[in-house]
Amino acid sequence: MATYQRIVLASRPRGEIKPENFRLESLPLPQLAEGELMVRVHYLSLDPYMRGRMSEAKSYAAPQPLDATMIGGTVGEVIESRNTQFSVGEFVAGMFGWSEIGVSDGSLLRKLDVSSVPLSAYLGAVGMPGMTAWYGMNQIMQPKAGETVVVSAASGAVGSAVGQLAKLRGCRAVGIAGGKEKCDYVVNELGFDACVDYKAGNLKADLKAAAPDGIDAIFENVGGEVFDTALGLTNAFARVALCGMIAGYNGEDVPIRNSRALLKNRVNLRGFIVTEHPELWPQGLADMGALVAQGKLKYRESVAQGLAAAPEALIGLLKGRNFGKQLVKLI
Amino acid sequence: MATYQRIVLASRPRGEIKPENFRLESLPLPQLAEGELMVRVHYLSLDPYMRGRMSEAKSYAAPQPLDATMIGGTVGEVIESRNTQFSVGEFVAGMFGWSEIGVSDGSLLRKLDVSSVPLSAYLGAVGMPGMTAWYGMNQIMQPKAGETVVVSAASGAVGSAVGQLAKLRGCRAVGIAGGKEKCDYVVNELGFDACVDYKAGNLKADLKAAAPDGIDAIFENVGGEVFDTALGLTNAFARVALCGMIAGYNGEDVPIRNSRALLKNRVNLRGFIVTEHPELWPQGLADMGALVAQGKLKYRESVAQGLAAAPEALIGLLKGRNFGKQLVKLI
Repeated sequence: MATYQRIVLASRPRGEIKPENFRLESLPLPQLAEGELMVRVHYLSLDPYMRGRMSEAKSYAAPQPLDATMIGGTVGEVIESRNTQFSVGEFVAGMFGWSEIGVSDGSLLRKLDVSSVPLSAYLGAVGMPGMTAWYGMNQIMQPKAGETVVVSAASGAVGSAVGQLAKLRGCRAVGIAGGKEKCDYVVNELGFDACVDYKAGNLKADLKAAAPDGIDAIFENVGGEVFDTALGLTNAFARVALCGMIAGYNGEDVPIRNSRALLKNRVNLRGFIVTEHPELWPQGLADMGALVAQGKLKYRESVAQGLAAAPEALIGLLKGRNFGKQLVKLI
Repeated sequence: MATYQRIVLASRPRGEIKPENFRLESLPLPQLAEGELMVRVHYLSLDPYMRGRMSEAKSYAAPQPLDATMIGGTVGEVIESRNTQFSVGEFVAGMFGWSEIGVSDGSLLRKLDVSSVPLSAYLGAVGMPGMTAWYGMNQIMQPKAGETVVVSAASGAVGSAVGQLAKLRGCRAVGIAGGKEKCDYVVNELGFDACVDYKAGNLKADLKAAAPDGIDAIFENVGGEVFDTALGLTNAFARVALCGMIAGYNGEDVPIRNSRALLKNRVNLRGFIVTEHPELWPQGLADMGALVAQGKLKYRESVAQGLAAAPEALIGLLKGRNFGKQLVKLI
């Protein structure tokens, strides 16, 4: 292996992402400096936030530069090391992006114990998605036993963890997902109390039936009509963990039409970015890792094969075509 | 005085309130039972929440019944008493509604000290509007010295108190109000740092200029475009005290179009109803009363004369024609 492949952002999308916004490149393997180590990436994580980074609009994070390796979380194995803290054969998580190879001085890497948790789970239930669910649950929604928690994109990496955490707290967990297959999975395999198929065309009545005592907490991943409908069913003093608005990832406006419910029901809504709370990650990842190791937290993965499949997989993710955590397997 | 007058809700409005939704009635003076007292109402408070109560739509409060005295806060004087806790000549605040006379067993009345605070102020800066400002400031926005606080309807009873409380905390206070006269008052008499005239047609640029360091806290009374514009200028971790959406008091949808800012800037938004927090009123009213008595909190009143003027005064309030706290003087 004298060369490796990576994918760079070739152009910024207008509206929907197209495959030609990306470019696959081959590069010679780098030479390590003293203190550096080289990682062979096994899995690349694809996440909705990537769409936002591809635009130039002001956001909480700097845009992805053109002609640079696309940003992304990765897990992989150390294959060469000139750093005394890391040995060949160790597994690490890091932000190496859409690349088969990563080089680091080790400062932003997290060593992974793959004896009880599968490597890929460190990009899902025991990685950023899991941390996101954990933060929304424990820092914002804080539901009590018996309360009703609604989560959109319920079969996704974040949503599936949210509902299971809600069940572990003794809550009624109601998912919203697109299609019967996802809803069946959410109820039958993940153990949610109910799941509403927003594509079935009866969202309001179905959600009302699924949350007969009203909604006490919403974990919002989608925005738009799904969110407005849930807001309309909130009980007094409901909490909203506003995590994402995938309905608007292509740049269109996603108004909250049911804003009156925020006032009428004295809702407390908070937007959050889990990477801003690094002080909580050790506790959150320990909690989530233990739940996965004990079999109390289930998850599903959509795995695309090979780096070249990443663009189409991201496009599919933004359209809800994935089922569970979207990964790209590189090795 | 063998009879007194009151105003009842005669019909529910469709869209804007019309005078014929109300009916003025004369009734014989009631006889007091043992333990009761009679109050001659001096001032009636008019408030935006009344519009909501006039509709049948589900809200946080029961609708105003038809053919019953219109709800409303009042201050007045005890003119007859068969209750040992109240003496003739004492001043009290209560919810006697749109009526010249109120009868009570005293359980929901608050005795008023008019030696250092004018009677009418107990319906404004030292009443529900002042408490509303106090709650939003101290329980939700909690701005630090140097932060920028924006309040809409800034010349109103709530907004004027919000901005002055912000100044007392060492914040930059920016108002939004309709028209040059109101804006001049907010800056020159109330001491806000700036006030933006939303009717001038340049809201976004004007607000940006008035809040050059961005917005850390919003006290929202209006909703709609005014709120969207302020949201677009929020700094990270901004707080929003969502108090009202007067823009939609006639029942129309008031979408939050800039919902993306809630996520992007990790905004914490909370709707609230100050009457639900009675445990804080003694502290809040004591604070506000002291500020008024010391001349540190200014306010303005729009006073309509006579009970029959109340319907037109409420219609004017909902259209922003008042200037400061809207009262009806009955005596």
